[in-house]
Amino acid sequence: MTDFATWTRAAQTRIETALARALPAADLEPARLHAAMRYAALGGGKRVRPMLAYAAAEAVGPGNDLTVAAACAVELIHVYSLVHDDLPCMDDDDLRRGKPTCHVEYDEATALLVGDALQSSAFEVLAEAGASAEMVVLLARAAGSRGMCGGQAVDIASTGRTLDLTELEFMHIHKTGALIRAAVLLGALSCGALSGDRRAALEHYAKCVGLAFQVMDDVLDAEADTATLGKTAGKDKAQGKATYLTLMGVAEARDYARGLVDDALAAILPFGDAARRLAEIARFIVERQY
Amino acid sequence: MTDFATWTRAAQTRIETALARALPAADLEPARLHAAMRYAALGGGKRVRPMLAYAAAEAVGPGNDLTVAAACAVELIHVYSLVHDDLPCMDDDDLRRGKPTCHVEYDEATALLVGDALQSSAFEVLAEAGASAEMVVLLARAAGSRGMCGGQAVDIASTGRTLDLTELEFMHIHKTGALIRAAVLLGALSCGALSGDRRAALEHYAKCVGLAFQVMDDVLDAEADTATLGKTAGKDKAQGKATYLTLMGVAEARDYARGLVDDALAAILPFGDAARRLAEIARFIVERQY
Repeated sequence: MTDFATWTRAAQTRIETALARALPAADLEPARLHAAMRYAALGGGKRVRPMLAYAAAEAVGPGNDLTVAAACAVELIHVYSLVHDDLPCMDDDDLRRGKPTCHVEYDEATALLVGDALQSSAFEVLAEAGASAEMVVLLARAAGSRGMCGGQAVDIASTGRTLDLTELEFMHIHKTGALIRAAVLLGALSCGALSGDRRAALEHYAKCVGLAFQVMDDVLDAEADTATLGKTAGKDKAQGKATYLTLMGVAEARDYARGLVDDALAAILPFGDAARRLAEIARFIVERQY
Repeated sequence: MTDFATWTRAAQTRIETALARALPAADLEPARLHAAMRYAALGGGKRVRPMLAYAAAEAVGPGNDLTVAAACAVELIHVYSLVHDDLPCMDDDDLRRGKPTCHVEYDEATALLVGDALQSSAFEVLAEAGASAEMVVLLARAAGSRGMCGGQAVDIASTGRTLDLTELEFMHIHKTGALIRAAVLLGALSCGALSGDRRAALEHYAKCVGLAFQVMDDVLDAEADTATLGKTAGKDKAQGKATYLTLMGVAEARDYARGLVDDALAAILPFGDAARRLAEIARFIVERQY
């Protein structure tokens, strides 16, 4: 059995190759749009969502081509959301994954279309691999107004005011949690139908991991520097955004994240050693420095 | 057999009801986003694409719930594209369907998320009704960088310079043609598989109707007034956009559109009277005043 670092690198290479193949060539017309889509999607990112999809597939059965498509699809949705989130009318950021953001490197109109087209390509990739209607619905709901987009809307509305823990978690469960849940479930469903128990266990794992990921994002935004993060550090505070650190101290936040990861690990115990990668990803989330 | 005006009103009512049911309630959190989605999607528009989906279904077999879902899905993609197209970084328009555009009525960030979430909901609606993977792929390709988004990119790139007829039609075949083709094919496929001949006939019909629609859009933009159109008239010229009227006179453009409609009508002759509504829509396109 390879160690986690080796497994991670292999998964990242696999997703990079699959995304590079899924996206239209940079010289295909309209070439500027296609080049910008590749600029936004390729060559960077932790690829946490694809890794979760691969790991969930390993937990329930051998992965297959549909697993790769599911991993690509969730990452394409994630990348599109970053491109739109960085636009001037949203977070107005100019650095992402250590590079100029898409609208800085190209222009706003192109970045808008890049996000739009990447969302379409997520559904294209998933359905081309023969996804069931259930899987398409799952991705669409995770991406839409009762999922990721809804979380973004709450995030915008909450800027400048203090949220309590319930409100903050409502936001995160939508903004990042919904797509993390979709990554885990789509990865598992790519191997076939899931029993109710197994599905519930994976959903609980995904919920805890998603929240822990967000808590640590807030900690790292406050503690790490811009070079390490590859995106502008300290932005949450500067923008008056509600974060876990407005509700608790750094040490308390780290403890809270560790508790969530323990819950996640408990949820996947019934899968035994097949869930080893899911467990390793959960642990990585509280230990990561970027 | 009801006349075309009656059929049209019934189809418009049916799509309005289906969209109102498909979209989250305006008081469901995040309420501002959901209200804005309903503001953009409901209570307006000619609903040409849903009508094409219904008419194509009638041409090949009795329509069903999947036909309604296909009609909703293409309209949701169309509406999302209008919301994003009206944004300041694109066409920067403040009037649409006789109302303030979404970013004027709400704000830019909300309008961006409205478009994003409407795209997700298109795929949600289609897949919830049990669409095949083939249908999902068809919609995704029509919406994406080799379809509608690609056409938008060409449109932006061409502003201020003169296109020849080949370049202009490349743009339109992507920008509006791809989704019109998807409306016709998804409507037909909602009734079951299509033979190669029937599919080719419907595709030719859709291509001709799509181009004729665009030629007439250019004519009306130049000739009609803002109140009749429900959107800002004379904008193409003001923005230096390439249109058919930079390549030919109004009379010639109308003749060209009529020729395209004749081609469309010839393509659907093999369907006989079952294609009556498709024929009526094609004729409506060259006769419309708005």
